[in-house]
Amino acid sequence: MKHPAVIRPAEHAEWRTDKMGKSTLFESPRLLVGLNAFEPGQSHALHEHAGMDKLYYVVEGEGLFLLEGTELPMRAGDALVAPEGVAHGIRNTSGARLLVMAVLAPSPSAH
Amino acid sequence: MKHPAVIRPAEHAEWRTDKMGKSTLFESPRLLVGLNAFEPGQSHALHEHAGMDKLYYVVEGEGLFLLEGTELPMRAGDALVAPEGVAHGIRNTSGARLLVMAVLAPSPSAH
Repeated sequence: MKHPAVIRPAEHAEWRTDKMGKSTLFESPRLLVGLNAFEPGQSHALHEHAGMDKLYYVVEGEGLFLLEGTELPMRAGDALVAPEGVAHGIRNTSGARLLVMAVLAPSPSAH
Repeated sequence: MKHPAVIRPAEHAEWRTDKMGKSTLFESPRLLVGLNAFEPGQSHALHEHAGMDKLYYVVEGEGLFLLEGTELPMRAGDALVAPEGVAHGIRNTSGARLLVMAVLAPSPSAH
């Protein structure tokens, strides 16, 4: 993808039947902007990033943000920040597709 | 704001009559997640960030992304990445409020 340009995230989602689909909208050493695409029932298990902060923004659908010891219902338009070292994940508990923008700073490729 | 928690961006917007309103959702040396709130007619002039990449995501409303020599119509759900050194701005050309999430990596405070 060439930048700057208007990005319609849903047009870049990768949907997979076997697991969460991932795609990249932008990547530099400083910043990774990606999409996590969850069919109904799919999830991204609790994980954490050393030295990286993560922003989630729910583009489409609804489900749960997974955190250490708790789960938070979320829907399109909601965001969540997992600062470095804070475990986080996502589960699509709904009957429809869930698309989440995932922003990491710095980029994992810089490590 | 305490993190991680579910964030509804519109609840944190700061609207001003005199100029674009700015608020911060999260800030670390690695990442700044903020909101730019534009009443009809308000704008953020073309500017650039040395050594920082910026992601815009349109939360609510519609208007224009300003770029060097061009303007791109945008609306809620659209995103744009301005890599470091690429001039960018926003103008609310609509008759309704325009709310844009602005993500910078690394944070200006780290410079």
